[in-house]
Formats: sequence, C-alpha cells, structure tokens
Amino acid sequence: MTKQELFLYIVRKESFLCVGLDTDIKKIPKHLLQEEDPIFAFNKAIIDATQAYCVAYKINLAFYESLGVKGQISLEKTAEYIRRKYPDQFIIADAKRGDIGNTSELYARAVFEAADFDAVTVTPYMGEDSVKPFLGYPDKWVILLALTSNKGSLDFQFMADANGERLFEKVLKKSQEWATDEQMMYVVGATQGKMLEEIRKIVPDHFLLVPGVGAQGGSLEEVARYGMNSKCGLLVNSSRQIIYADSTENFAKAAREEARKVQEEMSKYLQWIINSK
Amino acid sequence: MTKQELFLYIVRKESFLCVGLDTDIKKIPKHLLQEEDPIFAFNKAIIDATQAYCVAYKINLAFYESLGVKGQISLEKTAEYIRRKYPDQFIIADAKRGDIGNTSELYARAVFEAADFDAVTVTPYMGEDSVKPFLGYPDKWVILLALTSNKGSLDFQFMADANGERLFEKVLKKSQEWATDEQMMYVVGATQGKMLEEIRKIVPDHFLLVPGVGAQGGSLEEVARYGMNSKCGLLVNSSRQIIYADSTENFAKAAREEARKVQEEMSKYLQWIINSK
Repeated sequence: MTKQELFLYIVRKESFLCVGLDTDIKKIPKHLLQEEDPIFAFNKAIIDATQAYCVAYKINLAFYESLGVKGQISLEKTAEYIRRKYPDQFIIADAKRGDIGNTSELYARAVFEAADFDAVTVTPYMGEDSVKPFLGYPDKWVILLALTSNKGSLDFQFMADANGERLFEKVLKKSQEWATDEQMMYVVGATQGKMLEEIRKIVPDHFLLVPGVGAQGGSLEEVARYGMNSKCGLLVNSSRQIIYADSTENFAKAAREEARKVQEEMSKYLQWIINSK
Repeated sequence: MTKQELFLYIVRKESFLCVGLDTDIKKIPKHLLQEEDPIFAFNKAIIDATQAYCVAYKINLAFYESLGVKGQISLEKTAEYIRRKYPDQFIIADAKRGDIGNTSELYARAVFEAADFDAVTVTPYMGEDSVKPFLGYPDKWVILLALTSNKGSLDFQFMADANGERLFEKVLKKSQEWATDEQMMYVVGATQGKMLEEIRKIVPDHFLLVPGVGAQGGSLEEVARYGMNSKCGLLVNSSRQIIYADSTENFAKAAREEARKVQEEMSKYLQWIINSK
C-alpha cells in the first residue's frame, strides 16, 4: 500500500485506528475453544466487527509463535483473510525483527512473501544492514522502533551523547538516510504528548505508529494534538481495550462498539484535514 | 542446561564450537529436495555428522520462518531431534526477540514451552521489561546482543555518552542487574580481539556467543586469546563454512571434516584449562 492510498483510506473512514490482534488463547471467550481453530475464529469475528472503524490491523507475532505450528497456521489464515476480504486495510506484522543482512533478508521473505503483510516492525540496534533488506519490496514498509512506551525504554533509548542527542533521536535521524517517508514509519510511544512534538521536529512527514493508547495508557487527544500532520501521519493502535472488551458470546459486538467510539473521537481530530481538502 | 554442565561438555569434547543451522532451501544439496521435509533431512544429516565436534547448535529462526508453516514444522522437528538424541547439546534459538513485557512473555513461551530450546538471543533496545520475561525459566538462558559483527553495528552500538561510555558497554553493565552469568550470555562480534579484551573487563565471567568466525571473518586464535576465561566462557559459532562445505551427496561428510578441523584447533586453546583441572 502506498502512503497516498493509506491517507485516502484514513480520510474515507475518518479513522486512523489500528486494531492490535494480540490474540491470546487464554483470553478469548470460552465458547470459541470448541472451534477447529479458535484463534482464527476469534480474529475473523473481531475483524468483521471492527473493519468499518479502522484502517489497519497489527498482528503481534509473539502470540501466534507461542502456539508453535498451530499458531503459525492461525497467523497465516488471519493475514490472508484480511488481505482477501478487506483490501483497504493496512496489515502490520508486529515482529520487532532485525539481524545481519542475510538473516534480515529471510525475515523479510517471511513477512512479505510467505505471508503478504504491508509492513513489519523492525528494531534498530544492529543498524543499517539489518534494516535495509526489508526495504527491497515496493509498497512495503518498515516501521522502525524509535521510542517505545514501556518502562524499559528509559534504560537505553534516552542515553545522550556529548551534545545531548539521545539514542532515539539518532535512530530517527540516521534512518532517514536509508529510506523516505514513503517506505518507513516509526514506532513512537504515546506516553507524553510533548515528546511527540519534539519528534515531529525530526520527522515532520513520516507516519508514526503509536502503540500506547488504551491499556498502555496514552491520551488520544494529546497524540492527535502533538503528533498529527497534514496527511494525518498517525496510526494509533489499540489492542486489549478493543478485542477483549467483552468475554462472552457478545465479544464481537462489544469490540465493534469500542472501535466505533475510538473512531468517533478520531473523526473529530481529522476534520481540519478533511475540510482543507 | 546449567553453566556447570555446559563447561563439563566443553571439557569432555575439547570444543566450544556452536554449529549454526542457517538452513536455506536454496542452498542445500539438490538431491534432498525429493525428501518429504528437505530442511529437516539436511539438518538431521548435519547434526549426526557434526555432533561429536560441537557443544551447541544455533537455529536461526529467520530461515525457517521464511518458509511459513512448513518451516515451522522443520524447526520444531530439528530442535526436538537434537534434544532427544543428543541431550548434551546446548540448543540456541537465534531469534533476536524483544518487546514489551506481555509480548516478550509470549516469545519466551514460544522458545521454552512450544519448543524446548536452552537459550534465546534477545535484543536490548527496549530495556529491562523486554528481557526479564525470558529469565523466568530455570536453567534457560538469555543471550543478549551487546556488540554485533556486522557493518551496521557502527551506527548505534558505538554511540558514546558524555563520559565516553558506549552503548554496548551500557548494555553489558546495565543487564548485569537483571541476571547473573548463570542465566545470561552476550553476543559479541569477533571482528577485533582487542575489543574482546575490553569487554572481558566488564563481563569477566559470562559466556560470550561469538558469531563472527568463518564466513563473517573473525580469527579463532584471536578470539581464544582475548576472550577465553577459566571456564572457557566462549561459544564460537560457525554456520555457512561448516554446513555448506560441500553441495553434493557428500555434504555431511564434508561438514564433519570442517567441524573436526575447528574442534582440533579449539582443543589446543583449551589445554591450559583441561590441564589445570
């Protein structure tokens, strides 16, 4: 998917919501356990219920890998289902991959050839040649970790050099030598709106994937105020708050209602862009 | 496997060789493609041929993931084969994982429960809570990326703070607050022996996994001279040079010969430890 297409879908749906499919066999409604593939059955219902209110799905690979081969099957079925039935959805492999060149090449094959994701999250620790192999696919995206929203982000990401430049800022700057905003986005934790403002000075045009709204605690209003640019430039993820809104047979309807509420709020923040078109 | 057991096997085999199973369907001998599971057939032959000369196998997950569900099956069969047939081998999931706590927990389940690896490589970018969930399993190991051997390691790992302390040094120091040398090792690229000397000052007792010998270009003699401690403290990996030593029906024999040569050299460097026991 191109940047222009993604923007088009955002405007059309008045939403920049990404629904995170962190599907845990231990958390899905009990009645689904009698299905042949409970994980896929859950995802399918959640996707059908929420797709009108979101523009992206983020599949968290850890949840599927924890089930071995079975999980891999559920994963592939889920990605394939979204691709086939809802081609206007941006599909993210949340994988946090990154290794030496010949190995990253294989990780890229996994998410862009064996499966057909639009984007993959990548960790920057190993530098340029660990990221570049993911950029060899037209209209496919790298979403590079810059500033994460967890407590451990304080351990290394805020390390500063002699000039006061911090590691996450270096990542944002250096990586712009590797790809443009047509192929790279950044993961930016949403815990502080002021931080988004600083980050926007370094990457004014890029899309940011913001994972920290909802269960992880960020405020959507603050993210929109400090993070939005004239092409929206935001994908805000919510996982648990939407997909586990209800644990009975009513789960999909409850997920839809949660997604709809988030979309309604997002719509307000998008009006200045829609009106200026 | 405990640190003491690993040391025992190193002394017994006079080897600290780790064979990297970077098994690429495009590179294995053509005659294997008629097997039901060519990747597993290749791995099984390589393992049987080399196990007398190594103490560890490192399974590079990217290569298996690139084949989707099929690859996942080959991966699980391979890990299970080593575990069952050669219980004295240390089995590493080379995965470079790391995410927020609840997600790292699931990655840990994938490598330590769905499969039964002894260790997993983890990337430090997201800090403590991204690493800790892997440490909740007795006798299982985290192998944390500190200094890698690729060109991109220069992009961020050598960033220095106002006191001249570099990122990889911070990782080595900070992470010692999370686990002891009984549960944590470090990935240290072997391109410069002098660098190993500096690293040994920070982590004198830890095992180091050195990936850069062979195709990636480090010298085994230098690694042994600067990196070895009184409990060996080294696992040196070689992948392509061993497993792709020959591309005919003779491939396993050729791999054995390559592994044997490396082991012979390692045996020399281990004599001072063996003699002092």
